[in-house]
Amino acid sequence: MLDAGIIGGSGYTGGELIRLLYNHPDVNVKVATSRSFSDRKVSDVHKHLKGFTDICFQNLTPQKVKSECDVIFVAVPHGASMNVIPEIVDENTRVIDLSADYRLDTRVFESVYGMVHKDPRKAPYGLVELHPEVADENFVANPGCYPTGAILSAAPLASNKLIETAIFDSKSGITGAGISPSKTSHYPNLAENIVAYKLTTHRHKAEIVQELERLDHNINNISFTPHVIPSIRGILTTSHLFLKEDMEYDEVMSIYQQFYKNNKFIRMVEGVPSLGGVRGSNFCDIGFEMDSENRRLVVISAIDNLVKGASGQAIQNMNLMCGFEETTGLWVSGISP
Amino acid sequence: MLDAGIIGGSGYTGGELIRLLYNHPDVNVKVATSRSFSDRKVSDVHKHLKGFTDICFQNLTPQKVKSECDVIFVAVPHGASMNVIPEIVDENTRVIDLSADYRLDTRVFESVYGMVHKDPRKAPYGLVELHPEVADENFVANPGCYPTGAILSAAPLASNKLIETAIFDSKSGITGAGISPSKTSHYPNLAENIVAYKLTTHRHKAEIVQELERLDHNINNISFTPHVIPSIRGILTTSHLFLKEDMEYDEVMSIYQQFYKNNKFIRMVEGVPSLGGVRGSNFCDIGFEMDSENRRLVVISAIDNLVKGASGQAIQNMNLMCGFEETTGLWVSGISP
Amino acid sequence: MLDAGIIGGSGYTGGELIRLLYNHPDVNVKVATSRSFSDRKVSDVHKHLKGFTDICFQNLTPQKVKSECDVIFVAVPHGASMNVIPEIVDENTRVIDLSADYRLDTRVFESVYGMVHKDPRKAPYGLVELHPEVADENFVANPGCYPTGAILSAAPLASNKLIETAIFDSKSGITGAGISPSKTSHYPNLAENIVAYKLTTHRHKAEIVQELERLDHNINNISFTPHVIPSIRGILTTSHLFLKEDMEYDEVMSIYQQFYKNNKFIRMVEGVPSLGGVRGSNFCDIGFEMDSENRRLVVISAIDNLVKGASGQAIQNMNLMCGFEETTGLWVSGISP
Amino acid sequence: MLDAGIIGGSGYTGGELIRLLYNHPDVNVKVATSRSFSDRKVSDVHKHLKGFTDICFQNLTPQKVKSECDVIFVAVPHGASMNVIPEIVDENTRVIDLSADYRLDTRVFESVYGMVHKDPRKAPYGLVELHPEVADENFVANPGCYPTGAILSAAPLASNKLIETAIFDSKSGITGAGISPSKTSHYPNLAENIVAYKLTTHRHKAEIVQELERLDHNINNISFTPHVIPSIRGILTTSHLFLKEDMEYDEVMSIYQQFYKNNKFIRMVEGVPSLGGVRGSNFCDIGFEMDSENRRLVVISAIDNLVKGASGQAIQNMNLMCGFEETTGLWVSGISP
Repeated sequence: MLDAGIIGGSGYTGGELIRLLYNHPDVNVKVATSRSFSDRKVSDVHKHLKGFTDICFQNLTPQKVKSECDVIFVAVPHGASMNVIPEIVDENTRVIDLSADYRLDTRVFESVYGMVHKDPRKAPYGLVELHPEVADENFVANPGCYPTGAILSAAPLASNKLIETAIFDSKSGITGAGISPSKTSHYPNLAENIVAYKLTTHRHKAEIVQELERLDHNINNISFTPHVIPSIRGILTTSHLFLKEDMEYDEVMSIYQQFYKNNKFIRMVEGVPSLGGVRGSNFCDIGFEMDSENRRLVVISAIDNLVKGASGQAIQNMNLMCGFEETTGLWVSGISP
Repeated sequence: MLDAGIIGGSGYTGGELIRLLYNHPDVNVKVATSRSFSDRKVSDVHKHLKGFTDICFQNLTPQKVKSECDVIFVAVPHGASMNVIPEIVDENTRVIDLSADYRLDTRVFESVYGMVHKDPRKAPYGLVELHPEVADENFVANPGCYPTGAILSAAPLASNKLIETAIFDSKSGITGAGISPSKTSHYPNLAENIVAYKLTTHRHKAEIVQELERLDHNINNISFTPHVIPSIRGILTTSHLFLKEDMEYDEVMSIYQQFYKNNKFIRMVEGVPSLGGVRGSNFCDIGFEMDSENRRLVVISAIDNLVKGASGQAIQNMNLMCGFEETTGLWVSGISP
Repeated sequence: MLDAGIIGGSGYTGGELIRLLYNHPDVNVKVATSRSFSDRKVSDVHKHLKGFTDICFQNLTPQKVKSECDVIFVAVPHGASMNVIPEIVDENTRVIDLSADYRLDTRVFESVYGMVHKDPRKAPYGLVELHPEVADENFVANPGCYPTGAILSAAPLASNKLIETAIFDSKSGITGAGISPSKTSHYPNLAENIVAYKLTTHRHKAEIVQELERLDHNINNISFTPHVIPSIRGILTTSHLFLKEDMEYDEVMSIYQQFYKNNKFIRMVEGVPSLGGVRGSNFCDIGFEMDSENRRLVVISAIDNLVKGASGQAIQNMNLMCGFEETTGLWVSGISP
Repeated sequence: MLDAGIIGGSGYTGGELIRLLYNHPDVNVKVATSRSFSDRKVSDVHKHLKGFTDICFQNLTPQKVKSECDVIFVAVPHGASMNVIPEIVDENTRVIDLSADYRLDTRVFESVYGMVHKDPRKAPYGLVELHPEVADENFVANPGCYPTGAILSAAPLASNKLIETAIFDSKSGITGAGISPSKTSHYPNLAENIVAYKLTTHRHKAEIVQELERLDHNINNISFTPHVIPSIRGILTTSHLFLKEDMEYDEVMSIYQQFYKNNKFIRMVEGVPSLGGVRGSNFCDIGFEMDSENRRLVVISAIDNLVKGASGQAIQNMNLMCGFEETTGLWVSGISP
């Protein structure tokens, strides 16, 4: 039984890590840190967890967490993580960072996030389906929520150098914006609405570009536009892909099935996936339709932003890093309706 | 490993039974019947279950189901169940009926549902917290969703003969109305709204009266008014209880804690419970506030109507009937947010 | 053409006042004050009003507003209003206060709101249907949103001394909590939920008691429990009324129709009213069902909390105070669906 | 005062026509037909209109409607309209068809809708901003809801031959699917979700192509993908436009402002428009962001699908056809929040 720690456990991803790890037979959440909620029961903050954990939040230093845990999840904001990671990464500890700090090449990070990076360390990009090498690592950068859905929707075609242009139009549940109330998450502003934002400049674009260009340097254009929808969870990505050659539906389906043949959390579906199929689960459902006339494909991917887009994927990384079966503790269906 | 069958598996309660039983270590769903979806994969209808069951719906007779299964859940409409139950109840089979047909005294049923009852058989009312005797039975009537939340909110006080008048004002998610689209479930009618209906005449009132009067014959008035709210799941019951004597908060809390001391799915909470705490889980969260001046108590109970209000409670009954631990396969937290 | 001013115009009630007064043929909104948004266009804050007003918010003293306006709406928080009102009320100005400061008897106010009242001035309670005398006044206290729906649902029976006990179980859209983001209005907390709060202690109860006891001193018990629902606008009140004598549906309907026969904004409906029928309008729809067996009535009233529950009612008061037809500028239907 | 008739008045567009025309000083709704609701009060079906119309639905022939009315709105399904129009169009009657039957070139219609067109008649495409010539017509085809938002977002650039490729990713409120309950509009399927459909084959694409190609024959590719969101009303269109040449924000803004300089219902906004700004109104709000590096523009347009996308636009057409001011009866702000 491994002991797990969560640095920054009072947010949504912290709550999900504890919820999901409760089902894990080989890992026990021993420590969760929080400054604001120090000494308060975790289940006072995450009330749905009453009966599932007795621990209290503690205000501990990273080193103290390291001394008590075999696995550490870092769930602090970007910019903060780079101060924590150097204190805890070593060969005896498995560390998964859920922030943006180590996802990008350092120079790209500095340009996109407008800050100096203090730690030159590299980490593999923990999108397991593209980076099985995380199994050999003790420090992994967990992907962003939008990039997870966008990259998975296009990677098989990129890998086959088939994409000319890719436009990702993503729609996210509001929990992506975090647990703190804001104008965006204010019910009267979001209900009965859909809010487009950062139409051409969202930071997550850099992750999408990095990963797709890794598969194919010659994609002509990669665009990304995010929206928030009146939904608690979920990201539906509509990927408008223009291809380099004429293709048939079955041919494309084969490419996806082949590419993901060992990835149990990717479900290729006939028809159009939707958020209801993945809510609460670690799946990414993918479906598409061909517009053969125009060498154009519309791919839809659906994930739960807090699970496959954050905490579930972090546990998936942990499973590989610790030598567990990839699906351990994560093999639960979504809740629907 | 017991084989379970579901008669009428294509609705919401059927989907939930399959979802929840997947986590049960000692029970396997072998058969699910449906006329309309016969021969179609269960996971084509309940898409979130893709990867969790390979069975197809079958159009089987009750006898055929009985011949293949150790445990049978009957999830057909009221009035239909009384035609199925006589075919399957015997001493070698455990049967849980999710319809209303066997919840009430036969004469009350006939009056409330306006139909002749064809089967004089009796079944215990499977609200386990009040009826532990289900453990000795092979046929149980699973309670209605509204009565589950209402009765649990008031039973400890009724049991102590403390209630003068009880008014249950309940608010339900729309899945209580079933999987078939209707005017009520039509999004433009329900969103941004709350719909009161059957203000004084809802059939579930009879179950509430039966169970509370079983605990105390002298309750002066029991009223029940249901509403549907723009929520998929959940029932929040606001119970306005007038008491026979002056009481303090702590005294009342003791009575509830004592009454439910062996019931792991009842969580007494300080403050006011809400649907977010129980979504997807088998818990009933209960909290209350005293209006001492007026010998009046407002109790709030929160359940997931499809779990504690239907399929989860049915499995809880099954666990007791089959000699399993009450919580087996059901000990998962809610999903929040 | 009268000039109107709004003190505290950047919130929801301010926005509604401007929206609604645009349609008023005899009144022009000349001034809207705001400290935080001083010098910014009203239509930058209330974006839907682009093209409907060119004024900017100003940071003006109450006296300055009085010097420019014939009618003043005060839409500042309770406790703040009592500092403003003494500066602006005089015989040449019509003032409608939307705060709680002047709705209650001073001593009741001090006890309920836990603060000293600095201004002994009296104002009629501007629920026009019960207080036509506002027509003779130049200062009126606009009712609270919950009390508006609750009182209107029960006043005809109270007026006839028929009520034994009244329990108001109210469900409000979240705009009642104002324009500032909070935990309660945070989308993930409210969506798919219904939140009961202040189960026995909400301040609005005092208004309900004051107005119903004015009609009948001998009501045995008046209880009020509020909830917020996942809806932007609207208050649905479920009034559980126990009567002093047996009554028939038609008899009760006559009493309501008679009581409201001159009140154009009260619509008695067969069946159950819902929020969809009144959204955006100044109507209060009322319907009910008898439980004759128990001398009990369930009455449902539906209002838009921002219109009949706040700004619309304020304009209705203004119309009477200024000698306009009661419906002037307010006679628009709701928007549905 | 002109008399107006609505053929097919029991749906959402019928309800909106009556709601909006109530505010029109020069037009009175005299007749509304419906087979299913014949002889029932309009306000029994559209309950929010209680007090705003006393007429009953009638089951009248088109000729009979023509004999009683000066202006007729046809709000029947596509395929049905072509049987009605020939009976009512003449030089003494103004007719606005809200169906798809006359929006497209006949051969395109037959191909897209898979049916033979029985009536070779032509009608101008009633998108007033592009077709001011409707003022000279007595028969106009009212545009589809999706095309309204999509075309308006791109027309100024198309008109200047600046568009290389246009991808319209549209998100619609569910009222676009009509008043009849369906699987798509079933609350549990739509809430907490967003549903993409007809990813490459939606019929409305033909209207978008027709109108944009009318402005510029050489657009390389026009794609359209619709989604429904958990919202009652509104269409937000995210238009991903690739340009033929480098442009600056201000340059683009000038082009839009110039193009729409006489169009009062088009509001160009700094920042990103959203559905809250247009709810219940006839406005189309448009904003955009440049991705200069990639000669790419993301334009957002927001409309209320039932107003500017249907009934409001139909009245706008009527105003021009009848010689009224374009904004008569339509100049109301949206309702927000």
